[in-house]
Amino acid sequence: MKKTATFYHAGCPVCVEAERQVADALDPQRYDVEIVHLGEHADRIAAAEEAGVKSVPALVIDGAPFHINFGAPMSALKS
Amino acid sequence: MKKTATFYHAGCPVCVEAERQVADALDPQRYDVEIVHLGEHADRIAAAEEAGVKSVPALVIDGAPFHINFGAPMSALKS
Repeated sequence: MKKTATFYHAGCPVCVEAERQVADALDPQRYDVEIVHLGEHADRIAAAEEAGVKSVPALVIDGAPFHINFGAPMSALKS
Repeated sequence: MKKTATFYHAGCPVCVEAERQVADALDPQRYDVEIVHLGEHADRIAAAEEAGVKSVPALVIDGAPFHINFGAPMSALKS
């Protein structure tokens, strides 16, 4: 069964680079990768924070949060 | 042709988790993944820094550095 990987971002340049190079590099045979733009889908912020996401871009693989470089803190996405 | 991905770490718990979940998740059809323990191979530190690595664990994909969470600064690996 495939594992779930969720890539959270906010459209920032750091996010775009991480999406293009890291999220897109995951093995599609083993991972279902979902890309979520938190600026456009604020309703997904709570779930991201629950998974431990503190900043974007971040990748949650199998429930574990991995922050990739630093684009913006989650607080900047709540307006 | 496959791209090169180099995962730099120092054996720390944060590093091990990132290796198991992120480095191992890359698509082996498209990426040649090399795992480098900088604590054991100090001679690789210069090349990592040249690629922009500031802390471990980090993944350098196609020349671009991606810091994954935070385990230790590069300075801690030079003794």
